[in-house]
Amino acid sequence: MSGGLKVDNLELMKEISITSPTKILLLVIDGLGGLPSPKTGKTELETANTPNLDRLASKGICGLIDPVGPGITPGSTPGHLALFGYDPFKFSIGRGVVEAMGIAFDLKPEDIAARGNFCTVDEAGLVTDRRAGRISTEKCAELCRLLDGLVIEGVKLSVCPVREHRFIAVFRGKGLSPEVSDSDPQQVGVAPRPITALNPQADKMANIANEFVTQAKKVLAKHHPANMVLLRGFSRQVNLPTMPEVYKLKPAAIAQYPMYRGLARLVGMEVLETGTTIKEEFDIMKQNYKAYDFFFVHIKETDSAGEDGDFERKARVIEEVDSALSTLLNLEPDVIVVTGDHSTPALLKGHSWHPVPILLYSKWCRPDKVEKFSESACILGGLGRLPATEIVPLAMAHALKLTKFGA
Amino acid sequence: MSGGLKVDNLELMKEISITSPTKILLLVIDGLGGLPSPKTGKTELETANTPNLDRLASKGICGLIDPVGPGITPGSTPGHLALFGYDPFKFSIGRGVVEAMGIAFDLKPEDIAARGNFCTVDEAGLVTDRRAGRISTEKCAELCRLLDGLVIEGVKLSVCPVREHRFIAVFRGKGLSPEVSDSDPQQVGVAPRPITALNPQADKMANIANEFVTQAKKVLAKHHPANMVLLRGFSRQVNLPTMPEVYKLKPAAIAQYPMYRGLARLVGMEVLETGTTIKEEFDIMKQNYKAYDFFFVHIKETDSAGEDGDFERKARVIEEVDSALSTLLNLEPDVIVVTGDHSTPALLKGHSWHPVPILLYSKWCRPDKVEKFSESACILGGLGRLPATEIVPLAMAHALKLTKFGA
Repeated sequence: MSGGLKVDNLELMKEISITSPTKILLLVIDGLGGLPSPKTGKTELETANTPNLDRLASKGICGLIDPVGPGITPGSTPGHLALFGYDPFKFSIGRGVVEAMGIAFDLKPEDIAARGNFCTVDEAGLVTDRRAGRISTEKCAELCRLLDGLVIEGVKLSVCPVREHRFIAVFRGKGLSPEVSDSDPQQVGVAPRPITALNPQADKMANIANEFVTQAKKVLAKHHPANMVLLRGFSRQVNLPTMPEVYKLKPAAIAQYPMYRGLARLVGMEVLETGTTIKEEFDIMKQNYKAYDFFFVHIKETDSAGEDGDFERKARVIEEVDSALSTLLNLEPDVIVVTGDHSTPALLKGHSWHPVPILLYSKWCRPDKVEKFSESACILGGLGRLPATEIVPLAMAHALKLTKFGA
Repeated sequence: MSGGLKVDNLELMKEISITSPTKILLLVIDGLGGLPSPKTGKTELETANTPNLDRLASKGICGLIDPVGPGITPGSTPGHLALFGYDPFKFSIGRGVVEAMGIAFDLKPEDIAARGNFCTVDEAGLVTDRRAGRISTEKCAELCRLLDGLVIEGVKLSVCPVREHRFIAVFRGKGLSPEVSDSDPQQVGVAPRPITALNPQADKMANIANEFVTQAKKVLAKHHPANMVLLRGFSRQVNLPTMPEVYKLKPAAIAQYPMYRGLARLVGMEVLETGTTIKEEFDIMKQNYKAYDFFFVHIKETDSAGEDGDFERKARVIEEVDSALSTLLNLEPDVIVVTGDHSTPALLKGHSWHPVPILLYSKWCRPDKVEKFSESACILGGLGRLPATEIVPLAMAHALKLTKFGA
């Protein structure tokens, strides 16, 4: 129900948003939501000692968000797009582009970017390790230099390292198309797949990509375990309406990992240089507090710990966030939102579909009775259960950055 | 908000609604939702002593509604359209038309209505006061008479007073279009803007509107401070499917203020004459109880008190509603819905985005554990948090006025 063709959130925001001196903090604790340990009946968040987050929860308003939809396990890209207010179904962004943005590669509108893995193949050409034993980033860079600058049928290749076994391949030339299949078979024991055109206009692209794979195989032959490449997510730059255009914000991103920096750049945030610890990230926000009115601060380690199935480590990272939090609280931002881009329960060792706890604190929120920031307490929160795309509109409202809709 | 092509509520209602002898009361306490007083931690509604509403809440089912969407502060028009089941994004009604309806101006389908302000300009023609010092309604009426009846290129102008400096200008003639820009610059220190056509079909309209402004300036030259006009919200009557058509109801509206009477008329309600007190409004419903099966009863004073920042007065008006309520309860309507069109927290002195408490009482509701009609209690209500457009369908269902959907 809930009638009719719904308005485009971003169009509405463009219409009613205004600039004001108030400041918003969106703290994203990646993979925040969890599942209870069978021993204690408590999730990672419920296990962690989080006096600062609990105090914010009791002064503020809580709830649960669905990043993409009930039952849907989000990848990091749709998870973050939704947090920034972009419908993840409407704005689908290829993996190649996300990785390229992550290393600030200067993509041109016609470029085609693919995400690459260095991998290991056996003598029969079958993949034995999709990640080539997770070679070092330095090794990756060295191998990329061997492939970078190739020219195939007038198309120039840029091959750039990302991290460990990950790289990007960017194809620049005329008449290219992203409408080709992946070579990455997503499993071992089989050969890399030939790249095929998904429509006749993409024949040239498929040929050039296959030729690149062939040449790469020759070049890498003696570099076992990284003796082959896998490509996926061929894609072209997407023009998203930016957060400054839509929300009239001056947003900054503080994130260590390239991918999140790339997503932030894609929606028009300025990406600030930062160190690798939570404390360093928070200090960067403090140092740049005057220059921006929206801060996206990204904590990666909760998700990594969850993916590793390390319940205790995930809980400890949450505690580390909590104890460093006073640096941010002392800045007294007008609106503070704490949530995640999806759940990553250590029990599942991966992203999951479970809704994610959210807390919103502002002078103008109508508090509920939630006194602890936890999955179970948030069920009874005043925000209820809502799509993640509503977060920025809610934050904007509480920062008094939205004018009235309609007469 | 929250993407995707949803079913059209009104089409569905048209399909499954039936006429029956049951009666529905929709009591709208304008601006009902509030924010807690820093002193007591209680909102206006929580401060008021409301034994009747609390009894209804404990026998019925409660929840929170978003009139337009999370974070969106509704104007009165979208707020009320949503309460009547109309998607406020789909049915957007221009300011000119709303004001014209408010004074029950008999708009024809081709008429173009604009909202006008008498304003003050200096010798250089720059606006110094957008409201001409809020001249009296009497003065406004006197000035309107000077402009009313002008004919420009065969187009007849009606210029009618609304209240204080506000008036409407209605353009009646052939080949007109609402697709023109405002002359109101929404700020002082600049000249009124020329009205421009937003597409070539609107050239005639823009020319005539500019000529009206030119003539008005001459006529008003000696009437400082009201020596100029500003126009905005050029719009044409919207044809809404009416409530009798959609819901097969015979609806009546009881509201003191012109604007709400206008909105009710727009959706096909019969507007009953009423006095100015809450008690008088309720008595009118009693007197007309047999003739209708849906009653929209509108209480304005809660919103006015909230806009004035008068927390205590808003609480007292809510108490007044509660104590007069027995008149309505004694009629034993089959379904009683009590809610607001938006929140108007006294602390914010204006409409806000906060969700609005709702209670629904009927013999057929599945009660929850809410025992008090308040913002915080409604968080845990059985209706959960829902868009305001679902209210009429829910009321219809509880009145047994909807048949089964599908085989």
